[in-house]
Amino acid sequence: MLIGAIEAGGTKFVCSVMDEFNETKDRCVIQTQKPEDTLAEVVDFFKDHPIESLGVGAFGPIDLNVKSDTYGTIKNTPKKEWKDFPLLDELKRIIGVPVAVDTDVNAACLGEFRFGAAEDVDSAMYITIGTGVGAGFVKDDEVFKGVTHPEMGHIKVKKMDGDTFRGSCPYHEDCIEGLVSGPAIEKRTGIKGADISVDDPVWETVAHYIAEALVNYTLVLCPERIIIGGGVMKQAHLYPLIRTEFKKILNDYIEIDDVETYITAPLLNDDQGVIGAAALSKDIRG
Amino acid sequence: MLIGAIEAGGTKFVCSVMDEFNETKDRCVIQTQKPEDTLAEVVDFFKDHPIESLGVGAFGPIDLNVKSDTYGTIKNTPKKEWKDFPLLDELKRIIGVPVAVDTDVNAACLGEFRFGAAEDVDSAMYITIGTGVGAGFVKDDEVFKGVTHPEMGHIKVKKMDGDTFRGSCPYHEDCIEGLVSGPAIEKRTGIKGADISVDDPVWETVAHYIAEALVNYTLVLCPERIIIGGGVMKQAHLYPLIRTEFKKILNDYIEIDDVETYITAPLLNDDQGVIGAAALSKDIRG
Repeated sequence: MLIGAIEAGGTKFVCSVMDEFNETKDRCVIQTQKPEDTLAEVVDFFKDHPIESLGVGAFGPIDLNVKSDTYGTIKNTPKKEWKDFPLLDELKRIIGVPVAVDTDVNAACLGEFRFGAAEDVDSAMYITIGTGVGAGFVKDDEVFKGVTHPEMGHIKVKKMDGDTFRGSCPYHEDCIEGLVSGPAIEKRTGIKGADISVDDPVWETVAHYIAEALVNYTLVLCPERIIIGGGVMKQAHLYPLIRTEFKKILNDYIEIDDVETYITAPLLNDDQGVIGAAALSKDIRG
Repeated sequence: MLIGAIEAGGTKFVCSVMDEFNETKDRCVIQTQKPEDTLAEVVDFFKDHPIESLGVGAFGPIDLNVKSDTYGTIKNTPKKEWKDFPLLDELKRIIGVPVAVDTDVNAACLGEFRFGAAEDVDSAMYITIGTGVGAGFVKDDEVFKGVTHPEMGHIKVKKMDGDTFRGSCPYHEDCIEGLVSGPAIEKRTGIKGADISVDDPVWETVAHYIAEALVNYTLVLCPERIIIGGGVMKQAHLYPLIRTEFKKILNDYIEIDDVETYITAPLLNDDQGVIGAAALSKDIRG
C-alpha cells in the first residue's frame, strides 16, 4: 500500500511516496513556480506510483475552515500567482485520490508528534524559525485548529529594555517573527545569521525573545513539549540560551518538570513536514 | 432530576440546585472560610436536595491532570488553609455523588458557551478581569486543557511607549494581570477603578493592554468569539475602546468578520460560573 505526501513550500515542493511503515519508496524536489507548472511536475512524479491517498502540508495562508466555500484555497499570499489558488481541489482533480491538507507547520508538528521528538507525550508544539516564524500544535493525536489556523508567529512580546530595533514584520511592530526570523536577525545586525559568530551577544537577544514567545505559548496552550526547528535553529547553541531565558521569565509560575526535555530540537531532521503530510493522508484513509 | 453546582471562589462559594432545564431550585452563598467550615455549610445546603451529581468551578491553582495523584487538589494558593486541600475527593466523600471539577474560568466559559454569549458558535474564550485575570477556552463543546490548566492571565504583552508602570504581578513584570486587573488599575492611579471617571485617559491604557492580550490569544487559539467579564468590565465603556485598539493592533492580519460580535460582554450576568459548573456536572452523568 502506497501513500503520497507533499510538503508544499513557498520555494520548493517535496513530494514523497511511502509505504505504510513510513519507508520512502520514491521522492523528488520541485521548485515552486507558477501553480500550473508546479502541479504538472507533481502529477508527473505521482503518475508512476499507485498511491491510495495524498497528504499535503502547505504554505499559506490557506483556508482550513471546512465549512468555508474556499476550503483548501491559498489566500492572501505575497506569492501573487498562488493567491486564491484552490490547491486542495486541484490536487484532488489531477491526482484522483482523496487529499488531506493542513498548514506546513501543523503537518510538521504531527510528524514530530507521531514519529519524532514528541512520540512519548500527549501534546506538543512545533515551532519553525526560519524565513518566517510559524507554529503548530497537536493534542491527543489531533492537529489543533481554531476558526482559522493559528498565526502564532505573530504574537507580540515584551521588548527588552533599551532595544530600539522595531522588528522586520511589515504588519506588526515587535511581533516574534519580526524579532527572531532569519531576515530579522540580518536586518538587526547587517550580517546573515549563519555568518554571525557563536559568541556574538545578538544570540542572547534572539534567545530571549524566543523564550518570551515560548512562555506565552506555554501559558495559553500548556503543551507537554515544545519542539523548535527551522533554519535559525541550526545554530544549536541557541537551545541552552533559550532554556535559561525561559526559566528566568516563567519564574516557576507553572511547574515544568525538566526544561531540557520540555524545549527540544526536532528528531526528524528536515523531514517532519513530509512525514507529517503522509500521516495526514493516512488519517483520511481511515 | 436535580443537579448540584458550586462556583467555589476565593471569597465565596455559590451553591445551586438546578433541574435539567437549568431552572434554579435553591441557591445559597457561603463565605469562603477554612476548608472544613466551608464544606460543612456546603453539606448542610445540599443535604435537603437529592442531587444526582455535582459540578464545581474552583479557584486555583487546582491540579486538573487526570493522570496525577493529586487530581482535584488545590495547589500553591496564597490562601494557606486551602493549599494542598483535596477539594474533589472531599466533595465526593461528603456529598456522596459523582463530582466534576474544573477551574472557575473554564466553568464560566462553558456556561457562556452553552447558554450565553457564545451559544451560536463552535469555540469561545471567556476572560474575567477583576481581582486577577483568568481565561478559559471551549472548543466543540469541550473545555480546553493542556498538561495543566492554562494561566492565560499571565502572558506578557508589548509595553506602550513611555509607560513606566511595571505592573502589579509579583511574578512577572508586564504580564496582563499586572497591567489591567482591578488592583493594577488602583496601583497605577491611586484610585479604585469604580471611582475613576469614564473619560480618564487611564481607560485607554487599560483597553490597549487588554486588546494586546486579545490579539495574542486570537493568534494562538483563533476562537470564534471572545467574551470578557469580571469586575473591571462593569466599566462598559471599555468594550468599544478595546475593540478599536484590537483592530488597530491586529492590523487586518487575520480576518475578523465583525469585531462587535467577536469581542463581547457575557450574557449570563454573574451566573456563568454556576451555570457552567452545572453543565460540567451534567456531562459526567452522561
